[in-house]
Amino acid sequence: MQLSEHLQELRTRIELRLCEDTQLTVDCPDRLRESVRYSLLAAGKRVRPCLALMACEACGGDPTVALPVASALEMVHTYSLIHDDLPAMDDDDLRRGQPTNHIKFGESTAILAGDGLLTLAFEVIARDVKPAEVAVACIVDLASAAGVEGMVAGQQADLQAETEQSTLAELEAIHRRKTGRLLTCALTMGGRIAQTDLNTLNNLKIYGESVGLAFQIADDLLDVTGETMKMGKGVQKDDDHGKSTYPSLIGIDESRRRARILIDQACAAIAPLGERGNYLKALATYIIERDH
Amino acid sequence: MQLSEHLQELRTRIELRLCEDTQLTVDCPDRLRESVRYSLLAAGKRVRPCLALMACEACGGDPTVALPVASALEMVHTYSLIHDDLPAMDDDDLRRGQPTNHIKFGESTAILAGDGLLTLAFEVIARDVKPAEVAVACIVDLASAAGVEGMVAGQQADLQAETEQSTLAELEAIHRRKTGRLLTCALTMGGRIAQTDLNTLNNLKIYGESVGLAFQIADDLLDVTGETMKMGKGVQKDDDHGKSTYPSLIGIDESRRRARILIDQACAAIAPLGERGNYLKALATYIIERDH
Repeated sequence: MQLSEHLQELRTRIELRLCEDTQLTVDCPDRLRESVRYSLLAAGKRVRPCLALMACEACGGDPTVALPVASALEMVHTYSLIHDDLPAMDDDDLRRGQPTNHIKFGESTAILAGDGLLTLAFEVIARDVKPAEVAVACIVDLASAAGVEGMVAGQQADLQAETEQSTLAELEAIHRRKTGRLLTCALTMGGRIAQTDLNTLNNLKIYGESVGLAFQIADDLLDVTGETMKMGKGVQKDDDHGKSTYPSLIGIDESRRRARILIDQACAAIAPLGERGNYLKALATYIIERDH
Repeated sequence: MQLSEHLQELRTRIELRLCEDTQLTVDCPDRLRESVRYSLLAAGKRVRPCLALMACEACGGDPTVALPVASALEMVHTYSLIHDDLPAMDDDDLRRGQPTNHIKFGESTAILAGDGLLTLAFEVIARDVKPAEVAVACIVDLASAAGVEGMVAGQQADLQAETEQSTLAELEAIHRRKTGRLLTCALTMGGRIAQTDLNTLNNLKIYGESVGLAFQIADDLLDVTGETMKMGKGVQKDDDHGKSTYPSLIGIDESRRRARILIDQACAAIAPLGERGNYLKALATYIIERDH
């Protein structure tokens, strides 16, 4: 099966799961439920959930068993988008052409919807991942990736960096926390669900870190060239001028070269998985179109 | 030992634990760490953590084993205060006489500090509560109490109710979610740590629900009489006029009567614990001063 067909299959299952996980009881006010579902169920590539299912599969597990962590990953990703879009943060009115959550539902509901999604992510894993030892390991992965030493730290550093030019090292430190860690924990959680060994978990980690950074470079390149990346979060807003990016720091060609090296590293790391790792390899390559 | 002495002992351990849990690595930007610690380590009664430790003790467990859940409870409570104080929410500049987090650190850092504390709460439980089955049960308790069918739902309903008078049933439905559920899960998590039976967990739940509501009534009464409550979140801001409270809906005397009945219910629920439940009983009574 082609990668794109396989991704489509996985996405169908993910969409269904996200929908189920946010039915919610009458204890959830209608407006809050609507706000949560507006952002969570909006069209998206579901990159992190797909990576979790594919990592589980690559380790010999049934990918559908990883659906709770896939759902949790998308909830955490979505909460971060809702909060990042707030007026006090990046102040965005549109996301993928649709009004952002706070534009549609108001700031207070948007803050609460984000808080609720973050909380629900941990509930879903704790409730539905078996055995408990695996659930707990996944929660440690996800919380440390998303928290004050991970994604939240990256957003803080990013906001602080907006007023000044960063070095390449600073830029990479921001991306590693802001997007890299959550992507990486999609891989390790998928591996944990398949109850794979520590060595393989470490290989998945290397794959995740490399792909995460390549993903960010491709994203930066897309802003400049408008052509390089086919996956991801769509065309960036244009008011990022003044912020450091890979192309602005090292140029377009060197950025492309770096992205290619990272993808090669990612594929090498999961080589021990053999044929089972083929979808992950294809996905890594898909992130950057080498011919451009 | 007197209740007050015992509370002081427990609080000392809780403060130490909160401090340790927020040391954080260099990956956490200084400003974010400072913001997290500013609110978490601010003076407070630590009601929820104390209830968790005392519930564990009342079930025959070593209270110090419940410190991870105690810490997590205070983190969740603190995150909710930081977010509730934001301009888009209750818009408070002061909390217990100190500048609120967003006044001190700015809105974006305050939002992120809240997000970070919520995330860290689940990490601490997943990492430090053993065995894994108990950790997972505690995380389900905490997440469902704090999330879109619990505390977050209560805050949403409360914000929606600000513009209109509520009935008593609506008021109680808000309080049950906004404060009651987190208080109740302090009790059940403490019980779970002591690996108590389902029947006792249910009794602790009844105690928590009753005390939670009594706590709120006492809080409302304090706004009116300025004298009734000795524990809790301190004197309320005065701009709550127009919002329904127990005294405004049923009068001061009937409010007091209800609080007394609830405390009696709470004490009756934990009667089967015998002498081990004495601190919990004393704490319930302490919430409302019956002589006033």
